[in-house]
Amino acid sequence: MIVALSGGIGGAKLALGLSRILPPGELIVVANVGDDFEHLGLAISPDIDTLTYTLAGLDNPELGWGRRDESWAFMETLAALGGASWFRLGDRDLALHALRTERLRAGEKLSAITADIAARLGIVAQIVPATDDTLRTQLLTGEGWMDFQPWFVGRRAAPAVRALRYVGAESAVPAPGVAEAIARADAVVICPSNPFISIEPILAVAGIRRALELTRARVIAVTPIIAGRAVKGPTAKMMEELGMPPTASAVAQRYGTLIDVFIADAADAGTLDGLACEVRFAPTLMTTLAEKEALARCVLRAAEQR
Amino acid sequence: MIVALSGGIGGAKLALGLSRILPPGELIVVANVGDDFEHLGLAISPDIDTLTYTLAGLDNPELGWGRRDESWAFMETLAALGGASWFRLGDRDLALHALRTERLRAGEKLSAITADIAARLGIVAQIVPATDDTLRTQLLTGEGWMDFQPWFVGRRAAPAVRALRYVGAESAVPAPGVAEAIARADAVVICPSNPFISIEPILAVAGIRRALELTRARVIAVTPIIAGRAVKGPTAKMMEELGMPPTASAVAQRYGTLIDVFIADAADAGTLDGLACEVRFAPTLMTTLAEKEALARCVLRAAEQR
Repeated sequence: MIVALSGGIGGAKLALGLSRILPPGELIVVANVGDDFEHLGLAISPDIDTLTYTLAGLDNPELGWGRRDESWAFMETLAALGGASWFRLGDRDLALHALRTERLRAGEKLSAITADIAARLGIVAQIVPATDDTLRTQLLTGEGWMDFQPWFVGRRAAPAVRALRYVGAESAVPAPGVAEAIARADAVVICPSNPFISIEPILAVAGIRRALELTRARVIAVTPIIAGRAVKGPTAKMMEELGMPPTASAVAQRYGTLIDVFIADAADAGTLDGLACEVRFAPTLMTTLAEKEALARCVLRAAEQR
Repeated sequence: MIVALSGGIGGAKLALGLSRILPPGELIVVANVGDDFEHLGLAISPDIDTLTYTLAGLDNPELGWGRRDESWAFMETLAALGGASWFRLGDRDLALHALRTERLRAGEKLSAITADIAARLGIVAQIVPATDDTLRTQLLTGEGWMDFQPWFVGRRAAPAVRALRYVGAESAVPAPGVAEAIARADAVVICPSNPFISIEPILAVAGIRRALELTRARVIAVTPIIAGRAVKGPTAKMMEELGMPPTASAVAQRYGTLIDVFIADAADAGTLDGLACEVRFAPTLMTTLAEKEALARCVLRAAEQR
C-alpha cells in the first residue's frame, strides 16, 4: 500500500499515475488543507478538489484547474452584483463546495465528506485530508501576514514571501487513518508539489511528521523543480525569496532526513551530488497520461529496492 | 410615501405596480423574512429575492419564481453528487445568495445588503426586511413542528397546518427605518400575500405591529383570495385547516381592526357585508403589467380618501 502526500495540480498528476497502475485500494492520497478557506459562505478545499476531479477524470484540461465542462453563469452574475470575483468558481464546481459546506455545518468531518464524494465519483483511491482540524497557511510578505488564497489567487503569488506559518497546526491531529497508513505503508511518496505551501502544511501536523519519521516504509520525494524552474506555480520564486537556490538539490536538502529517495528530473543529472539520500533520475514533467504512469512506475521501483 | 408589507409572488406584483406609478423614493416595501433559511451554507431570503427580481425586471416569467435567463448546471451537478436537490437554486440566483451570505458573515445587516443589491440592480423603491434579526416561520402539522421551507417546498405545503409560530419574533426589532416609515407614511398597504406565512410574520415583530396600530396612515389590505381560491399558493387550504372559511371576508376579519380598507376582488362583490372596515372592489388578479398598475392606482385612491 502506497501513501502519497500531495498538493494540487502537480501532485494530482502523479497521484493519477499511481492510481492507474496500483491495484484498487492500494493508494491513499493525503491532501494538503493549508489552502482551504471560506469564501462566499462556502468551505473550499482546492487541493482536495483538484485531486478529486483529476482522479475522477473530471479535471479541466483547458484551465488546468476546476472542473471539466464548466459554465460561468454564477461568476458573471456575482461580478455584475459587485461581488468578489477574484476567486473563480464554476457553476458545476460550486455544487461540490455547497455539498461540503452543508455537511460540515451538520457536524460531519471533512475526511468523511471527501471519502463520500470520491466514492460517488467512482474514485478507487482514497483521498484523505491531512487533518479534519482547521489548518491554514499564511505568508509573511512586505504587507504583513497574508492568508493563502488572497496571496496566491488574489495577488497571483506576487508579494515576496519572507516566511510561512500554518495556523492551527500546533493543535491539529491527523485525519483518521492517516498516521496508521503511513506506519504500515510499503512506501510514502512526497508528490512533486510545492514544498512550502503543499507538503509542509501536511508535515506541520505533528502526528503526520512523527509517523513519517518512524515508518519503516521508504519515503520517496519527487522533484517539483526541473532545471531551476517549477513546472507550474511559484515554487522556484519562493525558494529564492526564502534564501535557497531554486534547484532540485535544494528541495531534497529541505526534506533532509525525512526522505530516503529523491527522484530528480533527468535534466538535472549531475547536479545532485553529496545528498544524504539516494537520488534517481526520471522524466518528471508528466504531460501525457503515459508519462504520469511511467513516473509512477519509477516511484514504485524506488519503493521496492532497498 | 407608501409602505407596502409583502411576501413573495403576489405581493411583488402589487409592489411592481406601485413602484411604476409612484414617484421615485415614495415606495418602501417591507419584506417578510419568515421563510428565510440557511441551505447549502447559503443564507437564502426568498421573499426579498422575489421582490428584488420583480422590481428589477429580472423575474422569471416561465417559472414564476427565481431569476430570468437562468441555467441549472449547479443543481444538476449537486444532484449527481447526491446533494439535496429539493430546493432548486439556479446558477445566477446563487450569486445573490453567495453575496448575501458573505456579507452577513462579515457582520453586515440584511437590510444594508438588501438595499445595496437593489441599488446595484437599479431599483428605485426601497426593499427592507421586516427585521435584521432572525425570525423563522414554523408550522405545526401532524408530524410536529416543521421548518418553513421543508414544509413549503420540500413537501409542497401538503401537511395540514394546525398552528404557526414565528421563532425569534419575540426579540426581533424592526429593521432600521421600518417603524418610522409606517409612522409617517401616507398609507400602508398589506399586499395580496398569504396572511399566515407572509404578512403575520411581519406583524409578529412587535415594533411593526405597534407602529401599524399607532400610525395615522390609512391601512389598506388587498385580498389574496378571489372567489374562495388563492391565486397561487396554499392560502385557501391553510384557512380551511385553521378553521376559517377560505373567503376574502375571513381574511379581512383576520386583519381586524388593523386595517381601514379591504380591497376585495370584483368577483366577491356582495360577500363582504358587515365588516368593520371600508370595503372596495377591484380586479385583483394582476396578470398583466397594466393590471398591476391599475390595482396600484385603486390602492392609492383608497389611501387618499378618508
